Amino acid sequence: MLTGIHVAFVGGDMRQLEVIKRCIQLDASVTLIGFDNLESIFTGATKKPLTCDVLKDVDALVLPMVGTDDHGIVESIFCSKPLQLVEEHADALPQSCVVYTGMAKPYLKALLAKRQIPLVELLDRDDVAIYNSIPTMEGALMMAIQNTDITIHGSQVIVLGLGRVGMSLARALHALGARVRVGAKRPEHIARIYEMGITPFHLSELKQQVTNADIIFNTIPHLILTAEVIAQMPQSTFILDLASKPGGTDFRFAERRGVKALLAPGLPGIVAPKTAGQILANTLSRLIAEQCANREVSA
Amino acid sequence: MLTGIHVAFVGGDMRQLEVIKRCIQLDASVTLIGFDNLESIFTGATKKPLTCDVLKDVDALVLPMVGTDDHGIVESIFCSKPLQLVEEHADALPQSCVVYTGMAKPYLKALLAKRQIPLVELLDRDDVAIYNSIPTMEGALMMAIQNTDITIHGSQVIVLGLGRVGMSLARALHALGARVRVGAKRPEHIARIYEMGITPFHLSELKQQVTNADIIFNTIPHLILTAEVIAQMPQSTFILDLASKPGGTDFRFAERRGVKALLAPGLPGIVAPKTAGQILANTLSRLIAEQCANREVSA
Repeated sequence: MLTGIHVAFVGGDMRQLEVIKRCIQLDASVTLIGFDNLESIFTGATKKPLTCDVLKDVDALVLPMVGTDDHGIVESIFCSKPLQLVEEHADALPQSCVVYTGMAKPYLKALLAKRQIPLVELLDRDDVAIYNSIPTMEGALMMAIQNTDITIHGSQVIVLGLGRVGMSLARALHALGARVRVGAKRPEHIARIYEMGITPFHLSELKQQVTNADIIFNTIPHLILTAEVIAQMPQSTFILDLASKPGGTDFRFAERRGVKALLAPGLPGIVAPKTAGQILANTLSRLIAEQCANREVSA
Repeated sequence: MLTGIHVAFVGGDMRQLEVIKRCIQLDASVTLIGFDNLESIFTGATKKPLTCDVLKDVDALVLPMVGTDDHGIVESIFCSKPLQLVEEHADALPQSCVVYTGMAKPYLKALLAKRQIPLVELLDRDDVAIYNSIPTMEGALMMAIQNTDITIHGSQVIVLGLGRVGMSLARALHALGARVRVGAKRPEHIARIYEMGITPFHLSELKQQVTNADIIFNTIPHLILTAEVIAQMPQSTFILDLASKPGGTDFRFAERRGVKALLAPGLPGIVAPKTAGQILANTLSRLIAEQCANREVSA
């Protein structure tokens, strides 16, 4: 339970609603900032504007997945006026407050570090990344089905990288009947791919492997699908790049060669905002409870 | 090989291109009727208008998936002028000719039966229906991912019917981590569902089963999701009806109750026209070869 704990939300999208719902269920005292257009189904929460006053007794401040931009602007689909988090707001926060977000840009990190206010980036957590790999995988399947004229079943599929997303994706594609190969470097990854009943190959062989690929899913966040590699693919190959921006594909060359290549957007929030919100709600409510339990112990 | 065999195609969509390609590869003599706008990549084929003369030495006449409409109109995405198959065309066909289509309306059946010209409906074949269940299943996954705000993984999914599509779908959903239940009637279906590691239930219990369903896939081609059953579902349930038109759902009542229900269109031709075309090409080229081999034996 979060009884007696003050949680303030600043901005967000559909996912944040699940987190808000959970905090109310757990009896937190909830303040919503930048939710003006939300037709409230939340009887347990109070809507307030972004002022220093409202922040002064906050225990947990929850920002959207991308905390702020480089100027402190916080995105909110529930608010038409811009929300900006500035120095004075940070000054108003109590020392015991913890700020939660998906990932923080340097602006936000600097703002909080200066005042020694702890910042938790949820997307840095391994568990959150693994849970999130499920909606990412389903979104990737959806995009592959939409963007090819063949079935996934029976097609020659390559997954690059056996990280959190790579493993979920390789397993799902294999289960759907694709002929899956996974490219990796680390010997323990090669071993795990083999154990999964899937064909591993070393990334140094990538150029030879892509010559008959129907679909390539990249999860490696640096340039791996270079012009040299793309030149070896059939023109009908479809590349879906799941690595964070700018991806690992030479998109300019792919376009020039007529190879269809897409950088996938943040899929969890698009294909399954409710599940993605529940993933955040589960982790966030646990972290806030732990934060407050620790405080009581040390007090 | 189909050397010396004259195959005429009348109309069609992207799928037919795969069949045409295969017939040319197998050395058939190929005539294309109603492909005026196709920028021919088919050097081995001749384009002709629909006349009696062109039909008089045809061994196999291949029509689109829906052979003709109720007035003999043949659909072709490659032709702007309407194509109509009438009595005189049927008169021109030799007795040894076989007509192939996906499914025939009464008009086409009567036209050919009167002249004792054999008609093969490919979608009637069990093997074709099983192969086609693969793109249907992938299209159904795509629509479920698009139309819900949750992941398939972890959701409460019900599949109605363990026919060709039901089995492919149940297996795929189970592999993706959904909590799958399959509703059936025949004891051997209940046994097979159990063997697959999936939870079976008898369709007489449908009303009790739907109370916590997130997604329901229907494959049973008669009214099964009645108003009485829909009334038991959560409002957030998503119904995807894969049974042939008009489906097995009371769509009017679903809309009134605010339950999202969609009748899936012919998914193979939409989500995987190339694979769907290859399925037809495999079966059709084998059937035409058999037809001509039989003729030689009996001659």
